[in-house]
Amino acid sequence: MKYQRKLLAGITGYVPGEQPEIPGVIKLNTNENPYPPSPRVLEALRNLDTEHIRRYPDPACSRLRRAWAERFNLPGPEWVIVGNGMDDLLSLAVRAFVDPGDAVAATYPTYSLYEVLCGLHGARMEYHDLDDRFGTPESLLSSRARLCFLTRPNAPTGVSATREETAQLCERFPGIVVIDEAYVDFADDHCMDYAARYENALVMRTFSKSFSLAGMRVGVAAGHPDLIAEMMKVKDSYNVNAFSQAAALAALEDWAYMRACAERVRISRDRLREQLTGLGFSVPRSQTNFLLAVWDGRPSARELFEALRERNIFVRYFPVRRLENALRITVGDDSQCDALVAALRDLLCK
Amino acid sequence: MKYQRKLLAGITGYVPGEQPEIPGVIKLNTNENPYPPSPRVLEALRNLDTEHIRRYPDPACSRLRRAWAERFNLPGPEWVIVGNGMDDLLSLAVRAFVDPGDAVAATYPTYSLYEVLCGLHGARMEYHDLDDRFGTPESLLSSRARLCFLTRPNAPTGVSATREETAQLCERFPGIVVIDEAYVDFADDHCMDYAARYENALVMRTFSKSFSLAGMRVGVAAGHPDLIAEMMKVKDSYNVNAFSQAAALAALEDWAYMRACAERVRISRDRLREQLTGLGFSVPRSQTNFLLAVWDGRPSARELFEALRERNIFVRYFPVRRLENALRITVGDDSQCDALVAALRDLLCK
Repeated sequence: MKYQRKLLAGITGYVPGEQPEIPGVIKLNTNENPYPPSPRVLEALRNLDTEHIRRYPDPACSRLRRAWAERFNLPGPEWVIVGNGMDDLLSLAVRAFVDPGDAVAATYPTYSLYEVLCGLHGARMEYHDLDDRFGTPESLLSSRARLCFLTRPNAPTGVSATREETAQLCERFPGIVVIDEAYVDFADDHCMDYAARYENALVMRTFSKSFSLAGMRVGVAAGHPDLIAEMMKVKDSYNVNAFSQAAALAALEDWAYMRACAERVRISRDRLREQLTGLGFSVPRSQTNFLLAVWDGRPSARELFEALRERNIFVRYFPVRRLENALRITVGDDSQCDALVAALRDLLCK
Repeated sequence: MKYQRKLLAGITGYVPGEQPEIPGVIKLNTNENPYPPSPRVLEALRNLDTEHIRRYPDPACSRLRRAWAERFNLPGPEWVIVGNGMDDLLSLAVRAFVDPGDAVAATYPTYSLYEVLCGLHGARMEYHDLDDRFGTPESLLSSRARLCFLTRPNAPTGVSATREETAQLCERFPGIVVIDEAYVDFADDHCMDYAARYENALVMRTFSKSFSLAGMRVGVAAGHPDLIAEMMKVKDSYNVNAFSQAAALAALEDWAYMRACAERVRISRDRLREQLTGLGFSVPRSQTNFLLAVWDGRPSARELFEALRERNIFVRYFPVRRLENALRITVGDDSQCDALVAALRDLLCK
């Protein structure tokens, strides 16, 4: 194509999980929360009137930044930036801190969007393979890359780097460390305090998972104001709309509701893990709202994925190294999990 | 700052117009529509339930793309891409079609965001000065830049390039021509048909102005599927949220309502222009929902801007070459325009 940048010729873009519109589908493929958002979210949205539609939203997301800083004892709102989903913030981080040609470090496997973002920017991915038990590789600590993505807990493995490993990385890494905590509300601990402790740390969160706001597109990054200021330069002025700002603020204010939903998911997760293990899957202990179910038998993982899909049960399959033999399964509510397990039992003739 | 890219050191980012939260303010500074969105928009938003919040939105915005293609007789939805506001699409166009170091052409003055986007990408702005009456400069037609932004009608002048000039540009320009039609629903004609006629044209629209959806952030670009495919690669997967998609679709379906509002604005605009001319301003005939009121007297345009601001009347002032002596005034409803004119009359002691 005549007008194409050479850089983009070989890039396919990120392929998101399917969003099937089939009634009655069991959707365990994109890590949404099985529970609805806090009732306060709907109430806040209902309170918006035509003026919030007609006028531009607050370009700085001031109220949400202030509320986030207060919730996590950050010194002030200038330590926080809000994005149109966390994907927006990941893209901003690359564009704000990486020059084309620079290296960007990450573990392998991890969230596959990082590689797409680097490709689009003309940066090089520098992968460090997770160890056999999906643990954080030593080699990451000696990387000299410009920026490092640490997904904590990691996707699609569900396994988390420890706080100590994360602290070491911030101390030893020469560039920006993006600590992607998209799934951290389902984990045993978090690193939001590192945003204030390390001048090179950017701790990112999303409202799509634990807060059940995937449809609203809101993410948050926290870090030193010098870093936040650079990202503010790069972001679209009005990147988060009026409804999204209101929804996220209401969700954040109902912290107890989010915690209760996350706890239910954690209980279902550990229950599902036992069931899958019982069927012969090897499933690492997960700190997220999904499980990586490794399966070396017959039918193959890919065949299981396809057979489940025919039964209107959607899970995720990644046809890439180290994941060919695995399904990534979002933890739904118990009835969804039971339906999945029953289908698998049937497919495996167990 | 240790982690700063050299590229960003000299960049301040785009400065949007103020969004004051003062009750009773007369807000004529960011070109919002004075009339509310179609009642069908609120109805569509009210019909969304928690499932639209909990689940990811359609990443491709399929329904809106199809509706847009049908409205403008484009061959199919693959000729259309939807953005998180038109700013998102402008940024995508630069990142999809311009290499760092390339030149990007535009008239001067024009929408100041283009220069920011180029700066962030490491591209060079190549400006072509509008003639004395803010008409399109001949020199633009012989530009060899990689991409050209043609704001049609132009901001902040309100003056439009003709369809013939725009066609000539598409024919002679070697790169991508972005025809920014943010304000075109207030003009006498448009160029959406050029999206299908010229393989290098991208015609862009926003729902923020004529459709009164500034708070929702929705923009649309139309062009050859090869161009759209490149932009789809670069965009964030879920760049437009569920509420924004629903609102824009409902607004588009109530075309007659939008036309009626736009017509009211056009009538108020021409009335306001006469009043300002009567006060001694020189005001080019506008094809948009704002007027550029040029003022060479005392107090200066900047002083008028500040004095109006003290009276809670917000207009826009750009402290840059060729605009130092001008106010950009959004056309409000007649009572807002009358309040502005009364304040100006008072300040000018007329």
